[in-house]
Amino acid sequence: MTEVADLLFTNVHLATMVDGYGEIENAALAVRHGRIAWIGPRAEAPPAREEHDCGGAWMTPGLVDCHTHIVHAGNRSKEWEARLNGASYEDIARQGGGIMSTVRATRAASVDDLLAQSLPRVARLLAEGVTTLEIKSGYGLEAAAEERMLRAAREVAARLPVRVATTFLGAHALPPEYAGRPDDYVDMLCTQMLPRLANEGLVDAVDAFCERIGFTHAQTERMFAAARRLGLPVKLHAEQLSNQDGAALVARYGGLSADHLEHLDSAGIEAMALAGTVAVLLPGAYYFLRETAAPPVEALRAAGVPMAVATDCNPGTSPLTSLLLAMNMAATLWRLTPQEALLGATIHGARALGLEGQIGTLETGKLADLALWDIARPADLVYAMGANPCRAVVNGGIVRAVRV
Amino acid sequence: MTEVADLLFTNVHLATMVDGYGEIENAALAVRHGRIAWIGPRAEAPPAREEHDCGGAWMTPGLVDCHTHIVHAGNRSKEWEARLNGASYEDIARQGGGIMSTVRATRAASVDDLLAQSLPRVARLLAEGVTTLEIKSGYGLEAAAEERMLRAAREVAARLPVRVATTFLGAHALPPEYAGRPDDYVDMLCTQMLPRLANEGLVDAVDAFCERIGFTHAQTERMFAAARRLGLPVKLHAEQLSNQDGAALVARYGGLSADHLEHLDSAGIEAMALAGTVAVLLPGAYYFLRETAAPPVEALRAAGVPMAVATDCNPGTSPLTSLLLAMNMAATLWRLTPQEALLGATIHGARALGLEGQIGTLETGKLADLALWDIARPADLVYAMGANPCRAVVNGGIVRAVRV
Ligand SMILES: [Zn+2]
Ligand SMILES: [Zn+2]
Repeated sequence: MTEVADLLFTNVHLATMVDGYGEIENAALAVRHGRIAWIGPRAEAPPAREEHDCGGAWMTPGLVDCHTHIVHAGNRSKEWEARLNGASYEDIARQGGGIMSTVRATRAASVDDLLAQSLPRVARLLAEGVTTLEIKSGYGLEAAAEERMLRAAREVAARLPVRVATTFLGAHALPPEYAGRPDDYVDMLCTQMLPRLANEGLVDAVDAFCERIGFTHAQTERMFAAARRLGLPVKLHAEQLSNQDGAALVARYGGLSADHLEHLDSAGIEAMALAGTVAVLLPGAYYFLRETAAPPVEALRAAGVPMAVATDCNPGTSPLTSLLLAMNMAATLWRLTPQEALLGATIHGARALGLEGQIGTLETGKLADLALWDIARPADLVYAMGANPCRAVVNGGIVRAVRV
Repeated sequence: MTEVADLLFTNVHLATMVDGYGEIENAALAVRHGRIAWIGPRAEAPPAREEHDCGGAWMTPGLVDCHTHIVHAGNRSKEWEARLNGASYEDIARQGGGIMSTVRATRAASVDDLLAQSLPRVARLLAEGVTTLEIKSGYGLEAAAEERMLRAAREVAARLPVRVATTFLGAHALPPEYAGRPDDYVDMLCTQMLPRLANEGLVDAVDAFCERIGFTHAQTERMFAAARRLGLPVKLHAEQLSNQDGAALVARYGGLSADHLEHLDSAGIEAMALAGTVAVLLPGAYYFLRETAAPPVEALRAAGVPMAVATDCNPGTSPLTSLLLAMNMAATLWRLTPQEALLGATIHGARALGLEGQIGTLETGKLADLALWDIARPADLVYAMGANPCRAVVNGGIVRAVRV
């Protein structure tokens, strides 16, 4: 490269996340026009307008949290406490708890209300090196409220230094207006709500909750068919509480990801492997709900299915705003290796969003979304609990300091 | 109170932690000479030199982390990663892993080295509202290195805004010099090392690791007798991996606390209840080691044994620097109520250090160690994972802002 770089990072160890950690110690990395322009030894670095001495820090790709419900109103600490104090699920339901309490709060919230409550949560993720975030709708369950959620999600990217991928999750739960008429609700989603929101440019992907307490295999397939007609990629909350053959279904639609997967069987694994569908693992919900069935990590590994790790940040089952902690949980609870956990929060997370060509590794041509860490080795990011060794984050070539 | 206060906090909700949360909404709290001088409604507040409008935040006593090994050198992420990559315990031992790797690194470290590595860990705890911290020795296992650990622990309190209680844990593991001669080592601790370090004013309490892989019941009792001769209170790593009747032993010596307790039996519970010995619960190690036997929380509750919650921050079994996360783990994994978890990190933590007369509640006369939180209700501190809603901390009446 003979052209002058905008920015040169020196005195840095790279975990490129190409073929595992892809470690390059004592390296330099140049940025030009917001993209990674060059990687190599300091002595061969191109000239640059600005140099940033990293003081021996480690650099990884900016982290990717590829599954969140982080835009929502209210929290559910009250019912959680009531349950720990001995209330039954029936008591909670009688007091208006559960997902519908979040739906009510979210329906009552303006875009500004949603942002006021959600931006602090997003800021916590960003302080830990997250540069790309998926945000789902699904607590509105009516056109106007779903639209406000998605507009708030888009606005997050305008207010904070982060890329946001939006996912339409109208098929998250059945709204009370459609009690007893789930097929009518799904029809309305497919023919009215989704096309309209997609037309507004608010939808990057389509998701559903395929579960006994959610939507059936057949209803999910109708959502996917509607997404296909609109040219939108699909993903799925699959086999979290029971096996509904959801993973095979989303794989058949060339889906980006199947998420949760605690009850995934070998047919589902095979279908995902063939389709290149990412397994998004969400240990926060497993931990918080005290589940005991783990996703089939060894079989996924053996089949070569890429595994992503995400927070699933949501008020009911995973009030988690630390992707580093999700990585630790994936390793501690499910025996992912630290390398797999970090791949899961970088390139495999990117792949689960269809963004693997733009982000997720340190490679020439990719966007300069980077995180700098005060650690001795990459595994430290997964090992430590409650630490935040993030020293600085770079978003498209713009450096910002993070306080530790 | 007619005297002028130094500082008046207004527009604040108090969780005094007297009889449960002890909530007082819309209150005011006055500080004079570093202590809580008055609590009541704003309209009746005394005059004050300075007023601090808390903007509707919640205030709790500063948090107390009553069990840590936070002063140490090195970390063990390498062997943790090796194990996740399939290495056996024998492989790790052959490569010099395990607790002895921390002992080697700690023995090689100066006080300044220890501080350089430990202060960032302590700072993470303090950012979450911790104002008092226990720090144990026990990675030196020889007089000079144990002394350096304890001097570093004292120095932590000089460098950072936190009170530190030191605990001598020479009986943590058998040093290689004494292989096959554990009784000789314990004799040396009792007659030489402990008296000398106590004489230097470095020891606030005495602890031991009573376990099949640690020290026997009889050896532990000799440590306690030596502590008693020196007028030092005792505590114990008890019944973590097996039942050694350690809890009953430490209770018999009027001990401050018995810690871990996964294998505690009813005789131990009864002895603790009679003696007023605190049960210090350490869910970080249980989580990180994937243990399956939980401490008998219901029986402890029924017997009226106060339960504290602490991080156990250490490189081998609990690399945890978030007391809020420890509280969440205690509630999620062991079903403590959020109120019990918060009592465990305030007044019961204080009691485990013998400091319940000075700290741990919001009461007139206690030290003004306070934490201010951006939360809707106290349970939010336990419910959220990876969040840090701490807005400010007050240490002996000195306010410092915490960045969220
Ligand atoms: Zn989800
Ligand atoms: Zn310990």
